[in-house]
Amino acid sequence: MAESTSDADVPVAFQDPVYRAAVVDLLGVIAYGEISAFERLAEDAKLAPTLEDKVALAAMASAEFGRLEPLHRRITELGGDPFAAMAPFRAAIDQFHLHTAPADWLEGLIKAYVGDGLANDFYREIAAYLDPDTRDLVVSSVEDEGHAAFVVERVRQTIATDPSTGGRLALWGRRLMGEALTQAQRVAAERDALSALLAGGVDRPGLDLAAIGRMFTRLTDRHAERMAELGLDS
Amino acid sequence: MAESTSDADVPVAFQDPVYRAAVVDLLGVIAYGEISAFERLAEDAKLAPTLEDKVALAAMASAEFGRLEPLHRRITELGGDPFAAMAPFRAAIDQFHLHTAPADWLEGLIKAYVGDGLANDFYREIAAYLDPDTRDLVVSSVEDEGHAAFVVERVRQTIATDPSTGGRLALWGRRLMGEALTQAQRVAAERDALSALLAGGVDRPGLDLAAIGRMFTRLTDRHAERMAELGLDS
Repeated sequence: MAESTSDADVPVAFQDPVYRAAVVDLLGVIAYGEISAFERLAEDAKLAPTLEDKVALAAMASAEFGRLEPLHRRITELGGDPFAAMAPFRAAIDQFHLHTAPADWLEGLIKAYVGDGLANDFYREIAAYLDPDTRDLVVSSVEDEGHAAFVVERVRQTIATDPSTGGRLALWGRRLMGEALTQAQRVAAERDALSALLAGGVDRPGLDLAAIGRMFTRLTDRHAERMAELGLDS
Repeated sequence: MAESTSDADVPVAFQDPVYRAAVVDLLGVIAYGEISAFERLAEDAKLAPTLEDKVALAAMASAEFGRLEPLHRRITELGGDPFAAMAPFRAAIDQFHLHTAPADWLEGLIKAYVGDGLANDFYREIAAYLDPDTRDLVVSSVEDEGHAAFVVERVRQTIATDPSTGGRLALWGRRLMGEALTQAQRVAAERDALSALLAGGVDRPGLDLAAIGRMFTRLTDRHAERMAELGLDS
């Protein structure tokens, strides 16, 4: 058997320091996203019309927080510091939330569903370019735990009762998408390692411009599907 | 083997409807206390001076929320509705939080430590008068998960740096104790089943006035110990 040294434990992909830095970046942004989602959901829970709704949102918040620890552990294993890894992404994610503060309970629900859905689709797309262990970790960090059904039901209920809300909420969905793209672009421009990840390496496939275009088409298509599920135009 | 009927599954204590109602009440008040602690801790996390502190408080919040599900499950098993069981205690617990809104991060930490400690001591005292299954559930619902050490360290640090805060924070601790007693009394006055629990039954020991007095002495002693651990007079 091979002796267990730290190098033997590390998959070959991580011997490339640029790749390692990119993965630490990626786990850092996902981790800060979870903290931030926890905060936002806990805040929105206050707007809940009933105690049942409040508990449903608090459950979503706790689920987001529960995903933090495995991400932090992995960053540490890769020789990173979890808090240092999250720091570069605070501004972009905080700005996203600042610019998309829900005006009411319903906007909060839609943001939880549409915003998280979009971010999770994006991370799942990126996961395809990762080593298998990191890919599994990322995919499990963005799995929906069945909370989405609660949101869909509540939003459809409201629109059925008061169809006039549909127009306002459709606009809200577009604003969420626009703000998410703005902040994602900002992160891509600032974090070279993360962008390099998508460009590929000697042992990893990368994305050319046409492939990036197709990825964005898939992301916007899925956004439109989610809006349709809520009973809203996109 | 005995056929499994719903009655065969229920311990003998629960054949007394007053006891059953009292246990549903007790689990209801503990459950609402957890939701409420979740909300308050998530709110206080916003005041955290660092991201590390924020994560520590969010972890406490998620831990509180995680205790909700077993309580709700048990209420359902006893034939109760979890939300109906929590409802009678919302006013008292909400009032407690309204009257003890922390002015800053440090007051929030102390409230988390001293307030939860007091409530948990009280539930542990009551647990002694319960059937074994319920007792185990209650005791596991109020276990500290090592978060207290974080609070003690942070508060002691601050007082060491700025001893003048000690007087204000000692007053804050007294206010927490006073408000907790006020609301506990209110609950006791309104919930006959819960009070009957402490008075005992044919197959369960109860508390006479002298025993209640001794219980209160134990609770205030432990409150004083906690304040001393924080480096504060009580």
